[in-house]
Amino acid sequence: MSKFAMHAKFTAKPGERDALAAILLEAAADAEPVQECELYLVNLSVNEPDVIWVTEVWSHAEAHDASLALAATRAAIQRAMPLIAGVQPVQLTPVGGKGLVSAPPGE
Amino acid sequence: MSKFAMHAKFTAKPGERDALAAILLEAAADAEPVQECELYLVNLSVNEPDVIWVTEVWSHAEAHDASLALAATRAAIQRAMPLIAGVQPVQLTPVGGKGLVSAPPGE
Repeated sequence: MSKFAMHAKFTAKPGERDALAAILLEAAADAEPVQECELYLVNLSVNEPDVIWVTEVWSHAEAHDASLALAATRAAIQRAMPLIAGVQPVQLTPVGGKGLVSAPPGE
Repeated sequence: MSKFAMHAKFTAKPGERDALAAILLEAAADAEPVQECELYLVNLSVNEPDVIWVTEVWSHAEAHDASLALAATRAAIQRAMPLIAGVQPVQLTPVGGKGLVSAPPGE
């Protein structure tokens, strides 16, 4: 089964980036015990002051979909929505690299 | 010292994405023994057929700069250049998340 990955570029409403980052870090902490979540990385943009990039890698797409259905995830999304001006998702297929828990299929 | 991270969005020349991905995977393999390189992830875009996204996390920016000066890196860049139509770098500051070797400073 193929791994699933995505970048999500969140643009926060002015002044709300830190509050949004805190919610995303909570989501990362919630993903800590979830074995199928191999990476949930929260980065601030250096050059765009309202932007946060989240990069996720999952063992398979179904595990990602299942995470979105959890009550904790839905509650976090509800809290985050008022802070968000826009989201650009970038759907990805991991082919390899250094630093994941398990090797992607391309390795 | 702050961690350093970046996304690089590579657009390959038509038909060259797989060859470019192979060179980027070699670069990831070269980074395997480099302790300061915490993540070097190679992803194909699902929706843009010529696009590869590389996501790197380093313990500090100086380690990333030093990697660019290595003979192996310079040789890989020389081989990759003819395959590349464009690169968009996105400079990032990691704030936390799941899946890195060591915890970012925000955690």
